[in-house]
Amino acid sequence: MTGEAPRRRGRPSRTEREQGPGARTRILEAARAEFAERGYDKTSVRGIAKVAGVDAALVHHYFGSKDEVFAAAIEVSFEPATVIPAVLAEGPERVGERLARYFFAVWENPATRAPMLAVIRSAVTHEAAAKALRTFVLRRLLERVAGDLDVPNPKFRAELAASHMIGIAFARYVIKVEPLASVDQEEIVALVAPTLQRYLTEA
Amino acid sequence: MTGEAPRRRGRPSRTEREQGPGARTRILEAARAEFAERGYDKTSVRGIAKVAGVDAALVHHYFGSKDEVFAAAIEVSFEPATVIPAVLAEGPERVGERLARYFFAVWENPATRAPMLAVIRSAVTHEAAAKALRTFVLRRLLERVAGDLDVPNPKFRAELAASHMIGIAFARYVIKVEPLASVDQEEIVALVAPTLQRYLTEA
Repeated sequence: MTGEAPRRRGRPSRTEREQGPGARTRILEAARAEFAERGYDKTSVRGIAKVAGVDAALVHHYFGSKDEVFAAAIEVSFEPATVIPAVLAEGPERVGERLARYFFAVWENPATRAPMLAVIRSAVTHEAAAKALRTFVLRRLLERVAGDLDVPNPKFRAELAASHMIGIAFARYVIKVEPLASVDQEEIVALVAPTLQRYLTEA
Repeated sequence: MTGEAPRRRGRPSRTEREQGPGARTRILEAARAEFAERGYDKTSVRGIAKVAGVDAALVHHYFGSKDEVFAAAIEVSFEPATVIPAVLAEGPERVGERLARYFFAVWENPATRAPMLAVIRSAVTHEAAAKALRTFVLRRLLERVAGDLDVPNPKFRAELAASHMIGIAFARYVIKVEPLASVDQEEIVALVAPTLQRYLTEA
Protein backbone atom coordinates (compact mmCIF):
# COMPACT_ATOMS: atom_id res chain seq x y z
CA MET A 1 0.00 0.00 0.00
CA THR A 2 2.96 2.31 0.65
CA GLY A 3 3.57 2.72 -3.05
CA GLU A 4 0.01 3.62 -3.95
CA ALA A 5 -1.21 7.15 -4.51
CA PRO A 6 -2.61 8.51 -1.25
CA ARG A 7 -6.37 8.64 -0.93
CA ARG A 8 -7.77 12.13 -0.71
CA ARG A 9 -10.46 12.95 1.82
CA GLY A 10 -11.69 16.35 2.91
CA ARG A 11 -9.22 19.21 2.91
CA PRO A 12 -6.15 19.25 5.14
CA SER A 13 -5.51 22.48 7.02
CA ARG A 14 -2.13 22.80 5.33
CA THR A 15 -0.86 21.25 2.14
CA GLU A 16 1.26 18.13 2.28
CA ARG A 17 4.33 20.05 1.20
CA GLU A 18 4.04 22.45 4.11
CA GLN A 19 4.03 19.50 6.53
CA GLY A 20 7.32 18.24 5.22
CA PRO A 21 8.36 15.49 2.85
CA GLY A 22 7.36 11.92 3.66
CA ALA A 23 4.46 13.04 5.86
CA ARG A 24 2.43 9.99 4.85
CA THR A 25 5.24 7.58 5.78
CA ARG A 26 5.79 9.42 9.06
CA ILE A 27 2.10 9.09 9.88
CA LEU A 28 2.18 5.33 9.25
CA GLU A 29 5.30 4.87 11.36
CA ALA A 30 3.76 6.94 14.14
CA ALA A 31 0.52 4.93 13.90
CA ARG A 32 2.41 1.65 14.10
CA ALA A 33 4.32 2.81 17.17
CA GLU A 34 1.25 4.27 18.88
CA PHE A 35 -0.97 1.22 18.30
CA ALA A 36 1.84 -1.12 19.41
CA GLU A 37 2.57 0.88 22.54
CA ARG A 38 -0.87 2.04 23.66
CA GLY A 39 -3.23 -0.53 22.15
CA TYR A 40 -6.19 0.26 19.96
CA ASP A 41 -8.40 1.94 22.53
CA LYS A 42 -5.92 4.48 23.83
CA THR A 43 -4.52 5.46 20.43
CA SER A 44 -6.04 8.54 18.84
CA VAL A 45 -5.70 10.19 15.44
CA ARG A 46 -4.62 13.33 17.31
CA GLY A 47 -1.89 11.39 19.15
CA ILE A 48 -0.63 9.82 15.92
CA ALA A 49 -0.54 13.24 14.26
CA LYS A 50 1.44 14.68 17.17
CA VAL A 51 4.08 11.92 16.99
CA ALA A 52 4.30 12.32 13.21
CA GLY A 53 4.59 16.09 13.51
CA VAL A 54 1.58 16.81 11.27
CA ASP A 55 -1.94 18.14 11.65
CA ALA A 56 -4.61 15.63 12.62
CA ALA A 57 -6.47 16.81 9.52
CA LEU A 58 -3.71 15.38 7.33
CA VAL A 59 -4.13 11.96 8.95
CA HIS A 60 -7.85 12.09 8.16
CA HIS A 61 -7.04 13.35 4.69
CA TYR A 62 -4.83 10.39 3.86
CA PHE A 63 -6.53 7.58 5.73
CA GLY A 64 -9.98 8.58 6.92
CA SER A 65 -10.98 7.11 10.28
CA LYS A 66 -8.85 5.66 13.07
CA ASP A 67 -9.92 2.17 11.88
CA GLU A 68 -8.46 2.87 8.48
CA VAL A 69 -5.20 4.23 9.90
CA PHE A 70 -5.06 1.03 11.96
CA ALA A 71 -5.52 -1.14 8.87
CA ALA A 72 -2.90 0.84 6.92
CA ALA A 73 -0.45 0.55 9.83
CA ILE A 74 -0.92 -3.22 9.86
CA GLU A 75 -0.29 -3.42 6.14
CA VAL A 76 2.86 -1.34 6.31
CA SER A 77 4.07 -3.52 9.20
CA PHE A 78 4.08 -6.84 7.46
CA GLU A 79 3.26 -5.98 3.85
CA PRO A 80 0.95 -8.93 3.17
CA ALA A 81 -0.34 -7.25 0.03
CA THR A 82 3.19 -7.25 -1.40
CA VAL A 83 4.71 -10.44 -0.04
CA ILE A 84 1.84 -12.95 -0.14
CA PRO A 85 1.08 -12.54 -3.86
CA ALA A 86 4.81 -12.92 -4.56
CA VAL A 87 4.84 -16.13 -2.50
CA LEU A 88 1.86 -17.47 -4.41
CA ALA A 89 3.20 -16.40 -7.80
CA GLU A 90 6.00 -18.95 -7.50
CA GLY A 91 3.41 -21.67 -8.01
CA PRO A 92 1.80 -24.35 -5.85
CA GLU A 93 4.92 -26.45 -5.24
CA ARG A 94 6.10 -25.94 -1.63
CA VAL A 95 3.79 -22.94 -1.20
CA GLY A 96 2.99 -24.14 2.35
CA GLU A 97 6.66 -24.02 3.27
CA ARG A 98 7.16 -20.57 1.74
CA LEU A 99 4.16 -19.16 3.63
CA ALA A 100 5.36 -20.68 6.90
CA ARG A 101 8.77 -19.07 6.37
CA TYR A 102 7.21 -15.68 5.60
CA PHE A 103 5.16 -16.00 8.79
CA PHE A 104 8.31 -16.53 10.87
CA ALA A 105 10.16 -13.75 9.06
CA VAL A 106 7.46 -11.38 10.35
CA TRP A 107 7.10 -12.83 13.84
CA GLU A 108 10.75 -13.53 14.69
CA ASN A 109 11.72 -9.93 13.91
CA PRO A 110 11.08 -7.77 17.00
CA ALA A 111 10.37 -4.71 14.82
CA THR A 112 7.41 -6.44 13.17
CA ARG A 113 6.44 -8.67 16.08
CA ALA A 114 5.47 -5.74 18.34
CA PRO A 115 2.86 -4.29 15.97
CA MET A 116 1.51 -7.78 15.20
CA LEU A 117 1.03 -8.42 18.92
CA ALA A 118 -0.72 -5.07 19.17
CA VAL A 119 -3.04 -6.10 16.33
CA ILE A 120 -3.96 -9.36 18.06
CA ARG A 121 -4.46 -7.65 21.43
CA SER A 122 -6.59 -4.94 19.89
CA ALA A 123 -8.69 -7.31 17.79
CA VAL A 124 -9.40 -9.52 20.79
CA THR A 125 -10.51 -6.69 23.03
CA HIS A 126 -12.14 -4.18 20.67
CA GLU A 127 -14.78 -5.02 18.14
CA ALA A 128 -13.80 -1.92 16.15
CA ALA A 129 -10.24 -3.24 15.77
CA ALA A 130 -11.53 -6.73 14.94
CA LYS A 131 -13.75 -5.20 12.30
CA ALA A 132 -10.85 -3.19 10.84
CA LEU A 133 -8.71 -6.33 10.68
CA ARG A 134 -11.54 -8.32 9.13
CA THR A 135 -12.74 -5.68 6.69
CA PHE A 136 -9.63 -3.91 5.50
CA VAL A 137 -6.87 -6.47 5.93
CA LEU A 138 -8.10 -10.06 6.01
CA ARG A 139 -10.83 -9.71 3.41
CA ARG A 140 -8.50 -8.13 0.86
CA LEU A 141 -5.61 -10.43 1.67
CA LEU A 142 -7.61 -13.65 1.73
CA GLU A 143 -9.45 -12.76 -1.45
CA ARG A 144 -6.10 -12.18 -3.09
CA VAL A 145 -4.76 -15.54 -1.85
CA ALA A 146 -7.98 -17.39 -2.68
CA GLY A 147 -7.92 -16.04 -6.21
CA ASP A 148 -4.70 -17.92 -6.85
CA LEU A 149 -5.84 -21.26 -5.40
CA ASP A 150 -7.10 -24.18 -7.43
CA VAL A 151 -9.15 -25.88 -4.68
CA PRO A 152 -12.84 -26.02 -3.78
CA ASN A 153 -13.98 -23.15 -1.53
CA PRO A 154 -10.63 -21.33 -1.78
CA LYS A 155 -11.45 -18.53 0.70
CA PHE A 156 -12.30 -21.05 3.38
CA ARG A 157 -9.06 -22.92 2.68
CA ALA A 158 -7.02 -19.72 2.87
CA GLU A 159 -8.70 -18.89 6.19
CA LEU A 160 -7.95 -22.31 7.65
CA ALA A 161 -4.28 -21.86 6.76
CA ALA A 162 -4.26 -18.34 8.21
CA SER A 163 -6.03 -19.53 11.38
CA HIS A 164 -3.33 -22.14 11.99
CA MET A 165 -0.61 -19.52 11.77
CA ILE A 166 -2.56 -17.12 14.03
CA GLY A 167 -2.89 -19.93 16.59
CA ILE A 168 0.83 -20.66 16.49
CA ALA A 169 1.52 -16.94 16.99
CA PHE A 170 -0.83 -16.97 19.99
CA ALA A 171 0.74 -20.06 21.59
CA ARG A 172 4.39 -19.15 20.83
CA TYR A 173 4.48 -15.37 21.27
CA VAL A 174 1.50 -14.49 23.50
CA ILE A 175 0.95 -17.42 25.89
CA LYS A 176 4.55 -18.62 25.41
CA VAL A 177 3.78 -22.26 26.14
CA GLU A 178 6.83 -24.53 26.20
CA PRO A 179 8.36 -26.18 24.21
CA LEU A 180 6.54 -24.38 21.36
CA ALA A 181 7.77 -20.96 22.54
CA SER A 182 11.45 -21.80 22.27
CA VAL A 183 11.70 -24.60 19.71
CA ASP A 184 13.62 -23.68 16.56
CA GLN A 185 11.31 -22.31 13.87
CA GLU A 186 12.54 -24.95 11.43
CA GLU A 187 10.98 -27.66 13.59
CA ILE A 188 7.63 -25.90 13.33
CA VAL A 189 8.01 -25.30 9.59
CA ALA A 190 8.73 -29.01 9.05
CA LEU A 191 5.42 -30.04 10.60
CA VAL A 192 3.18 -27.12 9.66
CA ALA A 193 4.22 -26.62 6.03
CA PRO A 194 2.56 -29.90 4.90
CA THR A 195 -0.67 -28.79 6.62
CA LEU A 196 -0.70 -25.43 4.82
CA GLN A 197 0.23 -27.20 1.60
CA ARG A 198 -2.74 -29.55 1.94
CA TYR A 199 -5.23 -26.77 2.74
CA LEU A 200 -4.04 -24.61 -0.15
CA THR A 201 -3.48 -27.16 -2.90
CA GLU A 202 -5.32 -30.46 -2.30
CA ALA A 203 -8.89 -30.78 -3.47
CA MET B 1 -11.03 -30.82 39.10
CA THR B 2 -14.60 -30.35 40.35
CA GLY B 3 -14.64 -33.82 41.83
CA GLU B 4 -11.38 -33.44 43.74
CA ALA B 5 -11.16 -32.64 47.43
CA PRO B 6 -10.88 -28.88 47.91
CA ARG B 7 -7.43 -27.55 48.68
CA ARG B 8 -7.09 -26.07 52.13
CA ARG B 9 -5.23 -22.81 52.59
CA GLY B 10 -5.19 -20.61 55.66
CA ARG B 11 -8.28 -20.51 57.80
CA PRO B 12 -11.60 -19.23 56.47
CA SER B 13 -13.42 -16.78 58.68
CA ARG B 14 -16.40 -19.12 58.92
CA THR B 15 -16.58 -22.85 58.29
CA GLU B 16 -17.75 -24.11 54.93
CA ARG B 17 -20.97 -25.41 56.45
CA GLU B 18 -21.87 -21.97 57.74
CA GLN B 19 -21.51 -20.55 54.24
CA GLY B 20 -24.04 -22.98 52.86
CA PRO B 21 -23.79 -26.21 50.90
CA GLY B 22 -22.09 -26.15 47.52
CA ALA B 23 -20.08 -23.03 48.37
CA ARG B 24 -17.16 -24.27 46.28
CA THR B 25 -19.35 -24.80 43.20
CA ARG B 26 -21.00 -21.40 43.71
CA ILE B 27 -17.57 -19.76 43.86
CA LEU B 28 -16.50 -21.40 40.59
CA GLU B 29 -19.75 -20.40 38.87
CA ALA B 30 -19.38 -16.85 40.16
CA ALA B 31 -15.74 -16.75 39.02
CA ARG B 32 -16.69 -17.97 35.55
CA ALA B 33 -19.40 -15.32 35.25
CA GLU B 34 -17.22 -12.53 36.63
CA PHE B 35 -14.18 -13.31 34.43
CA ALA B 36 -16.44 -13.63 31.37
CA GLU B 37 -18.26 -10.38 32.06
CA ARG B 38 -15.51 -8.13 33.43
CA GLY B 39 -12.33 -9.61 32.02
CA TYR B 40 -9.32 -10.64 34.02
CA ASP B 41 -8.17 -7.24 35.17
CA LYS B 42 -11.46 -6.00 36.62
CA THR B 43 -12.38 -9.24 38.36
CA SER B 44 -11.46 -9.47 42.05
CA VAL B 45 -11.58 -12.26 44.60
CA ARG B 46 -13.79 -9.96 46.68
CA GLY B 47 -16.21 -9.50 43.76
CA ILE B 48 -16.36 -13.25 43.11
CA ALA B 49 -17.04 -13.88 46.80
CA LYS B 50 -19.85 -11.33 46.79
CA VAL B 51 -21.58 -12.94 43.78
CA ALA B 52 -21.16 -16.40 45.34
CA GLY B 53 -22.50 -15.16 48.68
CA VAL B 54 -19.44 -16.23 50.66
CA ASP B 55 -16.54 -14.59 52.47
CA ALA B 56 -13.52 -13.68 50.36
CA ALA B 57 -11.49 -15.73 52.85
CA LEU B 58 -13.31 -18.88 51.70
CA VAL B 59 -12.29 -18.19 48.07
CA HIS B 60 -8.66 -17.90 49.18
CA HIS B 61 -9.11 -20.97 51.34
CA TYR B 62 -10.24 -23.14 48.43
CA PHE B 63 -8.24 -21.70 45.55
CA GLY B 64 -5.46 -19.44 46.76
CA SER B 65 -4.76 -16.47 44.48
CA LYS B 66 -6.91 -14.85 41.80
CA ASP B 67 -4.75 -16.59 39.18
CA GLU B 68 -5.65 -19.95 40.65
CA VAL B 69 -9.37 -19.13 40.80
CA PHE B 70 -9.05 -18.14 37.14
CA ALA B 71 -7.43 -21.46 36.24
CA ALA B 72 -10.06 -23.42 38.19
CA ALA B 73 -12.87 -21.48 36.50
CA ILE B 74 -11.41 -22.34 33.09
CA GLU B 75 -11.21 -26.01 34.01
CA VAL B 76 -14.77 -26.14 35.27
CA SER B 77 -15.91 -24.40 32.07
CA PHE B 78 -14.68 -26.91 29.58
CA GLU B 79 -13.42 -29.77 31.74
CA PRO B 80 -10.34 -30.62 29.69
CA ALA B 81 -8.96 -32.71 32.53
CA THR B 82 -12.02 -34.97 32.30
CA VAL B 83 -12.86 -34.97 28.60
CA ILE B 84 -9.47 -34.99 26.87
CA PRO B 85 -8.14 -38.12 28.62
CA ALA B 86 -11.43 -39.86 27.75
CA VAL B 87 -11.01 -38.82 24.11
CA LEU B 88 -7.46 -40.16 24.09
CA ALA B 89 -8.37 -43.37 25.91
CA GLU B 90 -10.39 -44.52 22.92
CA GLY B 91 -7.12 -45.02 21.07
CA PRO B 92 -5.30 -43.32 18.21
CA GLU B 93 -7.82 -44.16 15.48
CA ARG B 94 -9.79 -41.01 14.56
CA VAL B 95 -8.46 -39.17 17.61
CA GLY B 96 -8.10 -36.01 15.48
CA GLU B 97 -11.77 -36.11 14.59
CA ARG B 98 -12.85 -36.70 18.19
CA LEU B 99 -10.74 -33.78 19.44
CA ALA B 100 -12.12 -31.49 16.73
CA ARG B 101 -15.69 -32.45 17.75
CA TYR B 102 -14.93 -31.82 21.42
CA PHE B 103 -13.54 -28.42 20.47
CA PHE B 104 -16.77 -27.48 18.69
CA ALA B 105 -18.91 -28.89 21.51
CA VAL B 106 -17.23 -26.33 23.79
CA TRP B 107 -17.19 -23.41 21.36
CA GLU B 108 -20.61 -23.78 19.74
CA ASN B 109 -22.33 -23.80 23.15
CA PRO B 110 -22.90 -20.16 24.24
CA ALA B 111 -22.62 -21.16 27.94
CA THR B 112 -19.04 -22.38 27.46
CA ARG B 113 -18.10 -20.02 24.62
CA ALA B 114 -18.41 -16.87 26.77
CA PRO B 115 -15.86 -17.98 29.39
CA MET B 116 -13.51 -19.28 26.67
CA LEU B 117 -13.63 -15.88 24.96
CA ALA B 118 -12.91 -14.28 28.32
CA VAL B 119 -9.91 -16.56 28.73
CA ILE B 120 -8.49 -15.59 25.33
CA ARG B 121 -9.14 -11.87 25.93
CA SER B 122 -7.54 -12.00 29.35
CA ALA B 123 -4.52 -14.02 28.26
CA VAL B 124 -3.85 -11.65 25.37
CA THR B 125 -3.99 -8.51 27.46
CA HIS B 126 -2.65 -9.57 30.86
CA GLU B 127 0.57 -11.43 31.43
CA ALA B 128 -0.82 -12.69 34.76
CA ALA B 129 -3.74 -14.36 32.96
CA ALA B 130 -1.43 -15.73 30.25
CA LYS B 131 0.76 -17.16 32.97
CA ALA B 132 -2.22 -18.72 34.76
CA LEU B 133 -3.37 -20.33 31.50
CA ARG B 134 0.15 -21.53 30.72
CA THR B 135 1.03 -22.74 34.21
CA PHE B 136 -2.15 -24.18 35.63
CA VAL B 137 -4.15 -25.24 32.57
CA LEU B 138 -2.03 -25.81 29.48
CA ARG B 139 0.96 -27.39 31.18
CA ARG B 140 -1.15 -29.96 33.01
CA LEU B 141 -3.44 -30.60 30.07
CA LEU B 142 -0.71 -30.88 27.46
CA GLU B 143 1.41 -33.10 29.68
CA ARG B 144 -1.60 -35.36 30.10
CA VAL B 145 -2.22 -35.47 26.34
CA ALA B 146 1.46 -35.88 25.51
CA GLY B 147 1.73 -38.81 27.92
CA ASP B 148 -0.69 -40.77 25.75
CA LEU B 149 0.99 -40.04 22.41
CA ASP B 150 3.35 -42.38 20.63
CA VAL B 151 5.19 -39.76 18.55
CA PRO B 152 8.55 -37.98 18.81
CA ASN B 153 8.43 -34.79 20.96
CA PRO B 154 4.82 -35.42 22.08
CA LYS B 155 4.37 -32.15 24.02
CA PHE B 156 5.35 -30.13 20.97
CA ARG B 157 2.91 -32.17 18.84
CA ALA B 158 0.09 -31.64 21.34
CA GLU B 159 0.81 -27.90 21.34
CA LEU B 160 0.74 -27.68 17.56
CA ALA B 161 -2.68 -29.37 17.54
CA ALA B 162 -3.90 -27.07 20.32
CA SER B 163 -2.55 -24.00 18.52
CA HIS B 164 -4.51 -24.86 15.38
CA MET B 165 -7.75 -25.06 17.36
CA ILE B 166 -6.97 -21.81 19.20
CA GLY B 167 -6.40 -20.13 15.83
CA ILE B 168 -9.72 -21.40 14.48
CA ALA B 169 -11.45 -20.11 17.62
CA PHE B 170 -9.79 -16.73 17.06
CA ALA B 171 -10.78 -16.50 13.38
CA ARG B 172 -14.31 -17.94 13.77
CA TYR B 173 -15.48 -16.52 17.12
CA VAL B 174 -13.34 -13.42 17.76
CA ILE B 175 -12.51 -11.88 14.37
CA LYS B 176 -15.48 -13.60 12.71
CA VAL B 177 -13.92 -13.71 9.27
CA GLU B 178 -16.21 -15.09 6.56
CA PRO B 179 -16.84 -17.78 5.37
CA LEU B 180 -15.06 -19.44 8.32
CA ALA B 181 -17.33 -17.74 10.86
CA SER B 182 -20.55 -19.20 9.47
CA VAL B 183 -19.56 -22.39 7.67
CA ASP B 184 -21.00 -25.57 9.18
CA GLN B 185 -18.66 -27.05 11.79
CA GLU B 186 -18.65 -30.37 9.90
CA GLU B 187 -16.86 -28.69 6.98
CA ILE B 188 -14.13 -27.56 9.36
CA VAL B 189 -13.91 -30.95 11.07
CA ALA B 190 -13.52 -32.66 7.69
CA LEU B 191 -10.40 -30.62 6.86
CA VAL B 192 -8.89 -30.10 10.29
CA ALA B 193 -9.29 -33.61 11.74
CA PRO B 194 -6.63 -35.11 9.41
CA THR B 195 -4.21 -32.35 10.48
CA LEU B 196 -4.73 -33.09 14.19
CA GLN B 197 -4.51 -36.81 13.43
CA ARG B 198 -1.16 -36.32 11.72
CA TYR B 199 0.30 -34.16 14.52
CA LEU B 200 -0.83 -36.57 17.24
CA THR B 201 -0.16 -39.95 15.67
CA GLU B 202 2.34 -39.83 12.78
CA ALA B 203 6.02 -40.04 13.55
